[in-house]
Amino acid sequence: MATLNIPLLDAREQDFVLYDVLDVESLGAYNRFAEHSRETFDRALSTARLIAENEFAPHNRKSDLNEPQLIDGRVTLIPEIAGALGSFADAGFFAAHQDYERGGMQLPWVITQACMCWFYGANVATTAYAFLTIAAANLLDAFASDSQKARYMLPMLDGRFFGTMALSEPQAGSSLGDISATAEPREDDLYRINGGKMWISGAAHELSENIVNLVLARIKGAPPGVKGLSLFIVPRYRLNVDGSNAEFNHVSVIGLNHKMGYRGTTNTVLSFGDGGECTGELIGRPHHGLSYMFHMMNEARIVVGLSSTMLGLAGHRYSLEYARNRRQGRSATRKVGNSVPIAIIEHADVRRMLLTQRSYVEAGFALGLYCALLVDRQKNDTDATVREHSRLLLEFLTPVFKSSSSEYALIANDLAIQILGGYGYTRDFPVEQYWRDNRLNPIHEGTNGIQAIDLLGRKAQMSGGLALALFIEQVRKTATDASTVPNLAAHAQSLDIAVVHLETISRYLIGAVDHVGIEKVLANAKPYLDIVGTITFAWMWLKQAIAASHNMATTATELHSFYRGKLQTCKYFFQWEIPKVAVLVDAVKRLETTWFEMDAAWF
Amino acid sequence: MATLNIPLLDAREQDFVLYDVLDVESLGAYNRFAEHSRETFDRALSTARLIAENEFAPHNRKSDLNEPQLIDGRVTLIPEIAGALGSFADAGFFAAHQDYERGGMQLPWVITQACMCWFYGANVATTAYAFLTIAAANLLDAFASDSQKARYMLPMLDGRFFGTMALSEPQAGSSLGDISATAEPREDDLYRINGGKMWISGAAHELSENIVNLVLARIKGAPPGVKGLSLFIVPRYRLNVDGSNAEFNHVSVIGLNHKMGYRGTTNTVLSFGDGGECTGELIGRPHHGLSYMFHMMNEARIVVGLSSTMLGLAGHRYSLEYARNRRQGRSATRKVGNSVPIAIIEHADVRRMLLTQRSYVEAGFALGLYCALLVDRQKNDTDATVREHSRLLLEFLTPVFKSSSSEYALIANDLAIQILGGYGYTRDFPVEQYWRDNRLNPIHEGTNGIQAIDLLGRKAQMSGGLALALFIEQVRKTATDASTVPNLAAHAQSLDIAVVHLETISRYLIGAVDHVGIEKVLANAKPYLDIVGTITFAWMWLKQAIAASHNMATTATELHSFYRGKLQTCKYFFQWEIPKVAVLVDAVKRLETTWFEMDAAWF
Repeated sequence: MATLNIPLLDAREQDFVLYDVLDVESLGAYNRFAEHSRETFDRALSTARLIAENEFAPHNRKSDLNEPQLIDGRVTLIPEIAGALGSFADAGFFAAHQDYERGGMQLPWVITQACMCWFYGANVATTAYAFLTIAAANLLDAFASDSQKARYMLPMLDGRFFGTMALSEPQAGSSLGDISATAEPREDDLYRINGGKMWISGAAHELSENIVNLVLARIKGAPPGVKGLSLFIVPRYRLNVDGSNAEFNHVSVIGLNHKMGYRGTTNTVLSFGDGGECTGELIGRPHHGLSYMFHMMNEARIVVGLSSTMLGLAGHRYSLEYARNRRQGRSATRKVGNSVPIAIIEHADVRRMLLTQRSYVEAGFALGLYCALLVDRQKNDTDATVREHSRLLLEFLTPVFKSSSSEYALIANDLAIQILGGYGYTRDFPVEQYWRDNRLNPIHEGTNGIQAIDLLGRKAQMSGGLALALFIEQVRKTATDASTVPNLAAHAQSLDIAVVHLETISRYLIGAVDHVGIEKVLANAKPYLDIVGTITFAWMWLKQAIAASHNMATTATELHSFYRGKLQTCKYFFQWEIPKVAVLVDAVKRLETTWFEMDAAWF
Repeated sequence: MATLNIPLLDAREQDFVLYDVLDVESLGAYNRFAEHSRETFDRALSTARLIAENEFAPHNRKSDLNEPQLIDGRVTLIPEIAGALGSFADAGFFAAHQDYERGGMQLPWVITQACMCWFYGANVATTAYAFLTIAAANLLDAFASDSQKARYMLPMLDGRFFGTMALSEPQAGSSLGDISATAEPREDDLYRINGGKMWISGAAHELSENIVNLVLARIKGAPPGVKGLSLFIVPRYRLNVDGSNAEFNHVSVIGLNHKMGYRGTTNTVLSFGDGGECTGELIGRPHHGLSYMFHMMNEARIVVGLSSTMLGLAGHRYSLEYARNRRQGRSATRKVGNSVPIAIIEHADVRRMLLTQRSYVEAGFALGLYCALLVDRQKNDTDATVREHSRLLLEFLTPVFKSSSSEYALIANDLAIQILGGYGYTRDFPVEQYWRDNRLNPIHEGTNGIQAIDLLGRKAQMSGGLALALFIEQVRKTATDASTVPNLAAHAQSLDIAVVHLETISRYLIGAVDHVGIEKVLANAKPYLDIVGTITFAWMWLKQAIAASHNMATTATELHSFYRGKLQTCKYFFQWEIPKVAVLVDAVKRLETTWFEMDAAWF
């Protein structure tokens, strides 16, 4: 059983979400993508799948069992990681979304993310090096000078330089305002960087010629708090004029963090300027570092959501195949005798666990790609209102997707283990690693508690409530579309009711700030996020159910089982998950204060 | 921060549950415990704590990092395991509940379990060797012959021999009817044992002089299914007449399972009779093996519940101390400036996560000890009705406690990780290990899916529904008691309503068997178990709240913070958890068929 060889993702699933639910072919109407079509999209997706399956998946367990080692200041990794990333680079994935003139494929972001999904599912730890590099390059693209782009970004697009995001410090994980790394201007436009960073992924390895650390630091004399942070390019090696590596820039790895999962990605404690001068180049204007960093951070949050979803999907696929193959027990009506055991998928409770997994991770998959599509619309639509509305909707959905997806997918991984039973608890099967790897996702790139505060404290009130209103409008639109589809009217109605709840509770909470204070209101941020998350996932199910119903009406019967599965999973979500909204709303409506009032001394 | 040295359990918590909530002192009225008092109980508890903290806790991480190794058929463990178990034996814990005349302390089972809790929390993997030995000895005590007891059980009570329970086989994990190990009678009352076993914990080590495997096997010619299983004593070494070890009995370790957690406990693939004859002694009558094994299994299920709870409590205690010490961020009303960061316990969302943990694990702790108390009543009460009712109530609660506790405690461990953030994800802190260790508990000793079927399919209908009725009567009694206590009336009412729901849904489901069939009804077993679990935990909260209210009225103010914490946690559970009952009941009432109807082909 340990050798089940199963695809990480059902290609039907990918095609259904991209083409039937999200209609990404319509992106061809944008000038930027004029030369693209389903054929070019599919070609990129097939290449991603091929490399992911052949070069990323095979060493996923090996890199879990062989953590990075720090020896004499250098970090060694298993060789397969470099090999896989080399193939990733050769296939052009570092620049897949970039302009043709920069050697890119000019693919929509939704397609590049769909490509990345194969890598996330195959080996999230190895893919992290690539993702960090792509996101760092995107930040440079948005805010760096032309010279900086030429020297640092272009080699990243080739996969010759890798990137990192260096925010956290031991005393400043979630609290970026307390960052204490410093930058002192020299006479030549460069800055002397001093201080330490903690939890920096991908900051130590020999995979690339150079490592481009994007470092938040405080220029001497800057104001305290987040408004005094500036962003610097701090390469591992300084560059000669011709772009080749010059001397070591005194970015030292003091230690590696030993994690429970995600072990193939080096996670480091860094020191700048220890034993020699460390120089950095300012990106953009002084004291604007955090807002620049959020460009990368927001991208990272979508990636966290998608990678957690892919770990969830990989576990789902594995436990599904296991359940089809593993024979154990009899049906309740035929317990005794010498009869042959049945496949465990025949046990209703196993199907319950499979269905629950699906309901979480397939909605997450659709939502993640929907978010990526919003990026394309925001950047490319000819209508300024569409661009702005896409931006606001994405702002609203980012904390929801990051948190809900990482929590749901972790439960999905837990259920995959449960289906495999004792086998699932051993390292001979992949599901326990998915669970351990996935546990990072509710923590990094802003804990889910931070996301909740971001949602209720900022996003729900953004642009005078427009972001929230746009979200509600989109959900209602889907409910309206569903209301005339056979068998979906009841779901549409449930979703409409849930949305009314959301409107009421949003107004209530935001209105309460004035008379009970912001702290008491924000104490309700997590249940508020759970309300929005449940509605969002239900919305994604209804979108999928509409597409599935449509396809059933227009395709041959032999294709229907996939669509029936979609409809049944939608039914599951509306039966078991959407009713939780009312419970949460009920508690929040009383302006929940149980934990707010809990005195620390009472613990 | 990594060196926080904190007690695994708040001693106030232990005393509150044992003496104030469960009134275990009243056990002194039973003849068997006449010589006991709070003083003797406390002495045993203090000894347990001392050994647990000094000898079990210190190597908990070390044994996680140094798995058992199988070399030339022998398993090596880190030496601290033997040392700890030696101290455990020297202090008399293998026989703590046994008669004085056997060298025991004649302690009530609830006290021995409270003692064991310190060990579970300190190092669940090392404690497993002790627990398996105690439970195997109890099985022998109940069903073995005097000669068998003398030769095998008495050395186990001294800690000289260790025990195992050997049920599962590779093709028969949950499905015991498919066990294929065989037993062939020899001429001398012994049986030749052949076959293999899988997942056998504690079956290979050099910790004890001998290992007493209790093996389920089928006597040649026995009926198929569970009714053809017999139980055998299959020692690692045969015994000479004087009880000393004779030759190897050909119980071979073919392999070790490499688990995600619980790593210090060897988990083995065994083979009997490979390379030489393996003999076993029949326990009791042929074909009655499974019912005997359930004596040990039921005890094991309570232990699973308690050990998961203790892992949950240990994580709670750790994350609580971390939250008191770790400074990060500012309050929402005072974000900017050079102010000193606040302890993270000041953030409402951290208190939410602490409160949630408490609400799960402290109710589990009370419930586990309540179950243990039922064992004492069942065995010692002078009133036959009390004995029988205690037995039935315990039968009903066992699957509930095993499952709900293991699921709640795992969520608690997850929240402990979340509070520690990135640190919690590293192996420098204990919380990630608690989570990994705990993940076994929903799987072993009968998966939670099996427990659900046991509850709805057997226990809820046991003795014509008397077990369920007794449970409901007890819950109602607590609600009635609470209804006159200030501030508890609303909770009492909520619990009463939930119980009405439970009555209705139980009647409905059991009644539906005739017209929709048992399979469709049992498809609802897991949500049914979740309903009962939520009510049971709420019941334990109300019991604790009554005791806390009483204590606040009768003790000095400086002691009140502990009781206020209890009351607030009770409030939390009634605010956030008990409303889930209505959602579940609502879905089950429609005779949930989402997953029942989900065709395997639709996945």
